[in-house]
Amino acid sequence: MKLWQKNTNVKKEIEQFTVGRDPEFDMQLAAFDVLGSLAHTRMLAQVGLLDKTDLDALQHEMKNIYRSIVAGAFAIEPGVEDIHSQVELELTKRLGEAGKKIHSGRSRNDQVLVDLKLYLRHELQQIVMEVKALFDVLQQQSERHQDKLLPGYTHLQVAMPSSFGLWFGAYAESLLDDVLGLQAAYKITDKNPLGSAAGYGSSFPLNRKMTTELLGFETMNYNVVYAQMGRGKTERVVSTALASVAATLARMAMDLCLYMSQNFAFVSLPDNLTTGSSIMPHKKNPDVFEIMRGKCNKLQALPTEISMLLINLPSGYHRELQLLKESLFPAFTELIECLQMMAYMLPQLQVRDKIMEEEKYKYAFSVDAVNAEVLAGLPFRDAYKKVGESIEQDTFAIPETVAHTHEGSIGNLCNQEIAALMNKALADFNFERAEKALQDLVK
Amino acid sequence: MKLWQKNTNVKKEIEQFTVGRDPEFDMQLAAFDVLGSLAHTRMLAQVGLLDKTDLDALQHEMKNIYRSIVAGAFAIEPGVEDIHSQVELELTKRLGEAGKKIHSGRSRNDQVLVDLKLYLRHELQQIVMEVKALFDVLQQQSERHQDKLLPGYTHLQVAMPSSFGLWFGAYAESLLDDVLGLQAAYKITDKNPLGSAAGYGSSFPLNRKMTTELLGFETMNYNVVYAQMGRGKTERVVSTALASVAATLARMAMDLCLYMSQNFAFVSLPDNLTTGSSIMPHKKNPDVFEIMRGKCNKLQALPTEISMLLINLPSGYHRELQLLKESLFPAFTELIECLQMMAYMLPQLQVRDKIMEEEKYKYAFSVDAVNAEVLAGLPFRDAYKKVGESIEQDTFAIPETVAHTHEGSIGNLCNQEIAALMNKALADFNFERAEKALQDLVK
Amino acid sequence: MKLWQKNTNVKKEIEQFTVGRDPEFDMQLAAFDVLGSLAHTRMLAQVGLLDKTDLDALQHEMKNIYRSIVAGAFAIEPGVEDIHSQVELELTKRLGEAGKKIHSGRSRNDQVLVDLKLYLRHELQQIVMEVKALFDVLQQQSERHQDKLLPGYTHLQVAMPSSFGLWFGAYAESLLDDVLGLQAAYKITDKNPLGSAAGYGSSFPLNRKMTTELLGFETMNYNVVYAQMGRGKTERVVSTALASVAATLARMAMDLCLYMSQNFAFVSLPDNLTTGSSIMPHKKNPDVFEIMRGKCNKLQALPTEISMLLINLPSGYHRELQLLKESLFPAFTELIECLQMMAYMLPQLQVRDKIMEEEKYKYAFSVDAVNAEVLAGLPFRDAYKKVGESIEQDTFAIPETVAHTHEGSIGNLCNQEIAALMNKALADFNFERAEKALQDLVK
Amino acid sequence: MKLWQKNTNVKKEIEQFTVGRDPEFDMQLAAFDVLGSLAHTRMLAQVGLLDKTDLDALQHEMKNIYRSIVAGAFAIEPGVEDIHSQVELELTKRLGEAGKKIHSGRSRNDQVLVDLKLYLRHELQQIVMEVKALFDVLQQQSERHQDKLLPGYTHLQVAMPSSFGLWFGAYAESLLDDVLGLQAAYKITDKNPLGSAAGYGSSFPLNRKMTTELLGFETMNYNVVYAQMGRGKTERVVSTALASVAATLARMAMDLCLYMSQNFAFVSLPDNLTTGSSIMPHKKNPDVFEIMRGKCNKLQALPTEISMLLINLPSGYHRELQLLKESLFPAFTELIECLQMMAYMLPQLQVRDKIMEEEKYKYAFSVDAVNAEVLAGLPFRDAYKKVGESIEQDTFAIPETVAHTHEGSIGNLCNQEIAALMNKALADFNFERAEKALQDLVK
Repeated sequence: MKLWQKNTNVKKEIEQFTVGRDPEFDMQLAAFDVLGSLAHTRMLAQVGLLDKTDLDALQHEMKNIYRSIVAGAFAIEPGVEDIHSQVELELTKRLGEAGKKIHSGRSRNDQVLVDLKLYLRHELQQIVMEVKALFDVLQQQSERHQDKLLPGYTHLQVAMPSSFGLWFGAYAESLLDDVLGLQAAYKITDKNPLGSAAGYGSSFPLNRKMTTELLGFETMNYNVVYAQMGRGKTERVVSTALASVAATLARMAMDLCLYMSQNFAFVSLPDNLTTGSSIMPHKKNPDVFEIMRGKCNKLQALPTEISMLLINLPSGYHRELQLLKESLFPAFTELIECLQMMAYMLPQLQVRDKIMEEEKYKYAFSVDAVNAEVLAGLPFRDAYKKVGESIEQDTFAIPETVAHTHEGSIGNLCNQEIAALMNKALADFNFERAEKALQDLVK
Repeated sequence: MKLWQKNTNVKKEIEQFTVGRDPEFDMQLAAFDVLGSLAHTRMLAQVGLLDKTDLDALQHEMKNIYRSIVAGAFAIEPGVEDIHSQVELELTKRLGEAGKKIHSGRSRNDQVLVDLKLYLRHELQQIVMEVKALFDVLQQQSERHQDKLLPGYTHLQVAMPSSFGLWFGAYAESLLDDVLGLQAAYKITDKNPLGSAAGYGSSFPLNRKMTTELLGFETMNYNVVYAQMGRGKTERVVSTALASVAATLARMAMDLCLYMSQNFAFVSLPDNLTTGSSIMPHKKNPDVFEIMRGKCNKLQALPTEISMLLINLPSGYHRELQLLKESLFPAFTELIECLQMMAYMLPQLQVRDKIMEEEKYKYAFSVDAVNAEVLAGLPFRDAYKKVGESIEQDTFAIPETVAHTHEGSIGNLCNQEIAALMNKALADFNFERAEKALQDLVK
Repeated sequence: MKLWQKNTNVKKEIEQFTVGRDPEFDMQLAAFDVLGSLAHTRMLAQVGLLDKTDLDALQHEMKNIYRSIVAGAFAIEPGVEDIHSQVELELTKRLGEAGKKIHSGRSRNDQVLVDLKLYLRHELQQIVMEVKALFDVLQQQSERHQDKLLPGYTHLQVAMPSSFGLWFGAYAESLLDDVLGLQAAYKITDKNPLGSAAGYGSSFPLNRKMTTELLGFETMNYNVVYAQMGRGKTERVVSTALASVAATLARMAMDLCLYMSQNFAFVSLPDNLTTGSSIMPHKKNPDVFEIMRGKCNKLQALPTEISMLLINLPSGYHRELQLLKESLFPAFTELIECLQMMAYMLPQLQVRDKIMEEEKYKYAFSVDAVNAEVLAGLPFRDAYKKVGESIEQDTFAIPETVAHTHEGSIGNLCNQEIAALMNKALADFNFERAEKALQDLVK
Repeated sequence: MKLWQKNTNVKKEIEQFTVGRDPEFDMQLAAFDVLGSLAHTRMLAQVGLLDKTDLDALQHEMKNIYRSIVAGAFAIEPGVEDIHSQVELELTKRLGEAGKKIHSGRSRNDQVLVDLKLYLRHELQQIVMEVKALFDVLQQQSERHQDKLLPGYTHLQVAMPSSFGLWFGAYAESLLDDVLGLQAAYKITDKNPLGSAAGYGSSFPLNRKMTTELLGFETMNYNVVYAQMGRGKTERVVSTALASVAATLARMAMDLCLYMSQNFAFVSLPDNLTTGSSIMPHKKNPDVFEIMRGKCNKLQALPTEISMLLINLPSGYHRELQLLKESLFPAFTELIECLQMMAYMLPQLQVRDKIMEEEKYKYAFSVDAVNAEVLAGLPFRDAYKKVGESIEQDTFAIPETVAHTHEGSIGNLCNQEIAALMNKALADFNFERAEKALQDLVK
């Protein structure tokens, strides 16, 4: 019946051009595709669209496939278009006609949608875990180096005393806010699109609540047109959350490159973590931080790239949405590598002590000197004048101690309070629900 | 004492170039600047840095200034650099020396930071309110037009039956996800930076917890270096949340421009809401939706613009952060106007009925026809073949009813469930805390 | 005859929303609008669509209007939609019915198109002039400070000797390449779209060659559909050329902010060109360079903003193209101000001498030392070893002279060769043709 | 002597993180790297830094290596860092110590710079060739379908008669302007950076004019600091030129996706060039055009990505510049594939005839009808009124012929004039100089 096979002879050039590198990214969806089908078929049986024998056979074989995917023993064969076709092919090889029944009541569109949601949810969790690991390292370094002062700059001009306790701790707190962005992305991701079919729903009596629970989603994308519209939008939101983490890393890397310059010399690295020049012994190039800065600055362009793909597309599926995979998927790996590398480098960073003793940083203490006089009882104007004159007459002396006591200052870093906020934010993700649901599915 | 006045003779060209349009945007911060000072001075008195007489006088006059700002009777005088200077000028005019004491224990930097946080928090609330208003309109239209079918497209090819109930409802649900993004932005904004001084804290024994409570912030930006680093980052996060709302509007506007074309003719507008051509009577140009599409697509470039301002700036304050105001502030007005205009237009949109009766949409029902046979007991392959043959022999007839029943489908829109999720999201903002705190401050 | 006035009662809200700030930008097109009409009417007369009496009257009055625009005595009255309507209103006031004849054979679309082309061509010329002025300043500073060495960095690590001659000269040469980009933008702009009507041409026997010559265009946008498609594309190309100049300025500003930091202290500014801190005497904030960096980094986002407006718009006019004006027009002013401010600042920059005598820059001369031995006859490996040992034993001495002689090196800056290339590039613009044509039109 | 080998034990993790995918892209530079060394060594000999025996041996072996690269028989071995090291390794294997002499008087930095310039120049030429091929196809289709009318839209509303002659021809002319952008990119690329060493020149008496001629560059990047600064800038400029071509293709693809929709049905494709739905016989999905639209819209984000990598980097080399390769190199392949695919598809496009006979397009002829009356002698106002009344009374008839005669209109496409401008633009590239120089080098 040729009508139904009209596409079998799509020109090879067309096939290559439209498929491109997609199978490569599809492999990352493999496990999630099977999980989606495990839930879908159980739902089909529950609403009477699949009989028990078929369900049992399908569940058994899909769990086998799932295990072989996890074991790295599953691949998309040459000539097979995508991961969904490969899974179906395996099933029909093993079960015959029954293998095809996993498609009832859904379309390739919502199958991909649910795979992507499961994949993104999983990747976001990995990112959050790595962010937390780096956060811990930053807080440790903040505590470890809390007594080492460094000049604080405004306008890149020496301004006030700062400390490595503050500097490390600041980036930890920056990650806390990034986690709030990741949480919004996670919530938007954690909604079930399965059952939206080609974006317009189905005339079958599907039970979407059931698949929502089976897959451990917090809720569903109710409206089927919106479920489809979430393709692209979800990716954009996720990319934005990644970009925010990347911005934190990039800024820290920029500081580090500057601080490693001979003109600052605030920090250094052991030789085996730098590259150098054969004939300039003082040169210790911070290649790791430069590459990290570059990777993380590139990641900040990702939301733009995704937006440009989506802008002015009318509602409904369009084929180029497939290209979102090759934009977004590698970003997870990139960012995780950067997070891990930063966590690996920082404890090995050598922090110079007694930086503030250099002449050029002296006046950074002038405001503190005025404040000290005020706290000792002198009216502000007089204190100001007194310190001003000591500067003019070059008799200004650095105060012996830097006594900053308020919340978040040199002497009161509040790392514990920040850690408490981080732990609260992490608890709000409720990763356990998703994990438990997926474990139950493959049990 | 010339040392202290070193900058009085900064060249006029320099002044103009660096100040630019800033005063214009500063006016939008005026009320928030006074609120910040009301809290700051109460804290200064509590820690012993301001006596009760001065506090009472300052509170009294600042409340007067606040009222004149709210009444629109306050302006930055020519020659006065910014809103902070103008407020101080007013206070010293009225109170003499005491007027200058509002600066003790803080720097221009954290003063601006707290103004911005208060402003952004307020603007985000306005946006959320307008989003909710449009959400309600969309759900009303979804209910009103729920029985009107329209073709659903994939690849811009007619694919399946959809409905105006689905179409309007989809954009409502899209706004729900946008609100989750706004919520992350709000949480990141809703943290007190006051007390961070120039970004390195103060040697005065400030009570940052007290100002956090007085200003109704959920918590504070603890680390003072991070508090400063939040400048720019907060703006970027907020712009991203606005861009997401804008993307929803832009896409809807694109659909509408297409649907108003004679080639679709799914919807139309009363004459007085369109522009037309004098000599082509059928031409009803959807200018409002085109301008909205344009404005909202431009808004999606805002995060890029802000990122480009920030990338690779080392930590610490830099003067160009001032330019963030002229990028971000107008975006609130733009987006609010777009949200209001969409809410104004949609109830007047004329939706064509019986669209699906056109011949070219006939085959959109083919999948439903197959499903109907399956539900009536025919095996899938046979059902498929039967419908296929009817199409080939041109005897295919449109099913009499479209009976989609699952969650989020044509016959079961789940608008109530979506509204419940929206209400839950709104409650999580806890706008009341902030509102009540600010009211108490000016009482 | 109501048919023809169908739009008279477009709702005021709609009008405000769609018109927005457009009249403000339209005023910048006023002179060019009249120039376009002067050419168009002469062509109409030539092809027999306008009689001589009307032509003479129109030419006379339009030249009057042109002069009042140039004199700043022309404004868009409240209630008048745009500059084109205002000009027509003036003409009909003075000439009655004849005033309306300037519209024959064209549409509002190609009228705006030609205005924009003339405006952009003019603005590009201004930019090129300012770029050349700054180029000259940079070359002068390069010559003036050619003997002052500074360390050259790679990876922000001290690497090799450089010089202020090289540093200033590099930015001059960067502007040369930027001018090549401006030239492409100019060429794409310098094509006549008049006669394309609403984007589909006219059934009148227009003479487009004639208007092309009268308006001094190099050639025309032949295909009328492409002429219309040039709207947006031209703006994007122009914005890209501006962004490239901006990138050169921003990078120079970043260098300057760094070099003014106490940690480099390579350059400084007189007090009245900086802002400072009242109590930190060494603080000289480079606000001008920071604001310039910020403005120029923002300008680099402009092509993204324009692209986002255009992406996926089907061919043909869309109303939001109007918004391109408010994106692009202010960019000319911004960039010109930055170019002028840089040209104003640099001659006042104080360049520190003897920078390289600081200990930390010593090893920057190690490669030169090796090369000197090689040129003196020692085999490379031995020279390398000898210098290496002197470094290890801390006996390494800075060579007395830096003798770099090849093209573009410290001792041979080639500023003249670069200037020659710049002059050649400028000549290729052929600004005279356009200038002369427009002067003839209003004679 | 450990001083000289300080980096031998850089940690493996650091190595992997910093090198990343670089070798993959380096392979594309292989042939150009050898070409650069062929020129460099000839220059070294000419200035007395290399003796004739070494020169001859090096030239001989490098030509061998060049041939093996061209034959695809050259690879970077595992453990070898980059293409430059691999070439050197080969040479020392074959020639011993002499192999290392190719490095005299240059640094890895200018070696990479010149490789990149040669590579980009070559790739730009390929792009221009493919653009020209598509241009020819577009003009052929324009001629072939010149008599087929289609409605022209403004605001997506039917407005005026257009034609496929105009529509195809418009995209050809759009490519003409894109070629002007490519030309600016080519000119900026076609300048020799060799001799700039690490970005600060060399104390050796290099002859940069000689390598400029040997490598067929139009001129050189004189200033060595600017030569280094060109890294990144060149890539950004090139990416912008590619993005402009991509924008033309994307817009055409958007038109085609729309025109293939059943709601327009202006064009169609043979079945084997589309994908379809098994059960909706009328569905012919334009996957090729959708993927092309997506790829080309993504390419428009490339300049943003590159800008984000570069913004606020102080002058001098930074390691992340390496990442530009993985951003830019694949863009050439992507764009060439898109250009070729468009050229392959268009001749197979089936263009519907008699589109304008549909009732809904009738009024598109109203302006022509008015003009016809005017040309027949009726005053404009009367003509206007007459046609208006015929529309109101529904007696309006489509004119029998569409007689547009001016330049660039339906009846006078001016494809030849446009082709002449294209040929002139192509001649200005002067590809022959570069080609001939490189051929001479490997002779």
